[in-house]
Amino acid sequence: MSKRAGIVVTGTEVLTGRVVDRNGPWCSEQLRALGVDHESTVVVGDRPADILAALRWLAAEGCSLIITSGGLGPTADDLTATVVGEFQNRPMVLDEPLHGRITAILERLTARWPSVDQVSIAAGNLKQATIPEGATILEPVGTAPGLVVPPLGDEGPTVVVLPGPPSELVPMWAAAAQTAPFIAATEGRAAIEQSMVRLFGIPESEIAATLRAASAAGIDIDALEITTCLRRGEIEIVTRYAPDQRALYDDFVRFVADSHAETLFSTDGSTIDEQLAALLNGPPLRTIALAESCTGGLVAARLTERPGASTYLKGGLVVYSNEAKTKLAGVPEQLIELHGAVSEEVAVALAEGARASLDADVGVGVTGIAGPGGGSDQKPVGLVWCAVSLGDGEQAVRKLQLPGSRQVIRDRTTTVVLHMVTRLLSGKEQ
Amino acid sequence: MSKRAGIVVTGTEVLTGRVVDRNGPWCSEQLRALGVDHESTVVVGDRPADILAALRWLAAEGCSLIITSGGLGPTADDLTATVVGEFQNRPMVLDEPLHGRITAILERLTARWPSVDQVSIAAGNLKQATIPEGATILEPVGTAPGLVVPPLGDEGPTVVVLPGPPSELVPMWAAAAQTAPFIAATEGRAAIEQSMVRLFGIPESEIAATLRAASAAGIDIDALEITTCLRRGEIEIVTRYAPDQRALYDDFVRFVADSHAETLFSTDGSTIDEQLAALLNGPPLRTIALAESCTGGLVAARLTERPGASTYLKGGLVVYSNEAKTKLAGVPEQLIELHGAVSEEVAVALAEGARASLDADVGVGVTGIAGPGGGSDQKPVGLVWCAVSLGDGEQAVRKLQLPGSRQVIRDRTTTVVLHMVTRLLSGKEQ
Repeated sequence: MSKRAGIVVTGTEVLTGRVVDRNGPWCSEQLRALGVDHESTVVVGDRPADILAALRWLAAEGCSLIITSGGLGPTADDLTATVVGEFQNRPMVLDEPLHGRITAILERLTARWPSVDQVSIAAGNLKQATIPEGATILEPVGTAPGLVVPPLGDEGPTVVVLPGPPSELVPMWAAAAQTAPFIAATEGRAAIEQSMVRLFGIPESEIAATLRAASAAGIDIDALEITTCLRRGEIEIVTRYAPDQRALYDDFVRFVADSHAETLFSTDGSTIDEQLAALLNGPPLRTIALAESCTGGLVAARLTERPGASTYLKGGLVVYSNEAKTKLAGVPEQLIELHGAVSEEVAVALAEGARASLDADVGVGVTGIAGPGGGSDQKPVGLVWCAVSLGDGEQAVRKLQLPGSRQVIRDRTTTVVLHMVTRLLSGKEQ
Repeated sequence: MSKRAGIVVTGTEVLTGRVVDRNGPWCSEQLRALGVDHESTVVVGDRPADILAALRWLAAEGCSLIITSGGLGPTADDLTATVVGEFQNRPMVLDEPLHGRITAILERLTARWPSVDQVSIAAGNLKQATIPEGATILEPVGTAPGLVVPPLGDEGPTVVVLPGPPSELVPMWAAAAQTAPFIAATEGRAAIEQSMVRLFGIPESEIAATLRAASAAGIDIDALEITTCLRRGEIEIVTRYAPDQRALYDDFVRFVADSHAETLFSTDGSTIDEQLAALLNGPPLRTIALAESCTGGLVAARLTERPGASTYLKGGLVVYSNEAKTKLAGVPEQLIELHGAVSEEVAVALAEGARASLDADVGVGVTGIAGPGGGSDQKPVGLVWCAVSLGDGEQAVRKLQLPGSRQVIRDRTTTVVLHMVTRLLSGKEQ
């Protein structure tokens, strides 16, 4: 019997989307890894009544553990600690030693801001050191302490109160999970395995057909919790299962692999980004250079998300203007005049030009119409030409006609490019 | 008296963070614009019991309108329509005309996938055309129809069922908001104004001090709903207020502007991206070129997020390797040897090189250590040099020492660069 947990994300800026919530999903993954079943995440604004209502609902749903994020800052609209105190019927008390530790942190920090108002700093400090009586303190990473607040009696959930900035929440998690109330609240948790396979280049309905076929072939897929989703142009099949169902899961994956040999690219959780990085790193090492028009640097930015990209990424050219295509990537002006900037010929010339300009092993060229303007009947918005060149004549070229917004077109193109390079380097068909 | 609304976002992929939810925040903004008070967003997985529990809680909280997103796909794990039918006590019925319309859509779509399994397509089609009796259909944008499902009697909320892909949900919203049950569920809504000011370059605690000072100066800030948040290095102060409090809000903004003249950069909701684009567009038009090392294309990608960037962005160089710094941006090898790739001198040379290589009016150079490796005592992770050059000798240079992860360092640097260029072009101090 696995215990259940809920998450409450607070902050009007998160509720209304000015800030994207990273904490709910991250905590969800941590809970899953611990074998704790995560039921739901409630996002509420900075209103105490709404935070309290969310805590009470999750408690009524039978959650033995509730994680909150946000609302621990120094300003008066940050009220989570107080609300959790009220929820657990614990009075708020000033923790003197904590107050001292926060003071020391603030003295270091405010050295950067010589003109800072000391009265406001002191008020914020006092607020952040005032916590529900009996709470376990999680040492501040920034200036806000986290809290583990158990129920006053034997009934009700333990509440883990974490700060909003992911850079503070993430390092605090391990300490929270080791506290006695956290462990007690998740006692009897059952490990649940989660595995993922990824496919690229087929519609989602094909997966539905494969699931039915697997079932017809005698694989008991109802004993697995399978979800499929389309993400940045790739299909992800995520399966959760009890550890003793491993053999069944393996059968299922083998069935999917046999059905979709051409499009399945990952069964070990690896992303296309990781696979491409491994291929470029080698041995043998293969260097890469880019010339991007419509993606405007997104392919380069995505490659450099990974530390160590400097080993294989020689550089990139953002050739947004025709002038840049000619000056930086050496695309002949006549070629652009003859075929247009968005054409197979220019994509190939960009790939060749990127490779040549930096003496790289692999060259990539991307040119397209991301919209919303700039389209025509012959070359509508969403038309993108991608080319990859290995220099020895070996190359891959794809014409895309992508639906969606400017952002979607640019992002999807980036994913396609990573798959094209990976397939070309590993000798697979495009 | 404003009516309240709640949002239920479904999907295990969203709950666990494999997909970032854009729908909850977007719908929240739409509700706010309509004067409907949005209380909370509940994110649940694909389990029917959890979806149902979320609907029942929001109803118990007094929501007269509930928006759901996701779970309308063709696969068997997409169950939202059925759960909403159960919640409203409405039996599921096949809508024959809708079935015909979806069939026509699918015939067009599957032309792209000649090998597609027709049986699975037909099964998905039948599922998507089966809806709660009495629901109003919102025509499909993809293949899934949206639904507006009113309560069976006079009590309880109306549920608006929308598909998960934002590209389908967004265009469907306007149709949903015009249906009679939606209008009835939000009757008596009161307009709430929302305005935002943005500051760059001060700590959040200063804003807390300013709020206290405003109050001491006789501005009744308790009549305004003020939230502050730190976002990508900028501070956003968002204020919600009844329309008849406009004069009070104006007083408050004037007070903030007087207190923070150097750091306040937006009182009209405009972003730094918009302000910079307007400055470059002119008149006079000023063209820009970039040479990025540690940001690896992120500045270029951010500039090209905006349609029309080709007017002013001549191009960019991603000079991740020293070789690229020399070959593409013309930074002398000796300069790198003498000062190191991460140095003021190289940042300035990159800015100059970018400008010169593309004959642009403005050149930007960025070089730093994004980590997690590559740092030293003298040049730790987070050290970044940024330079902007206008060519006539006018330039701005900043040394940053940023905390946080590789991703945070790269993102924060991008924001700083946009502010540096904007300040230099508008004659403000750095």
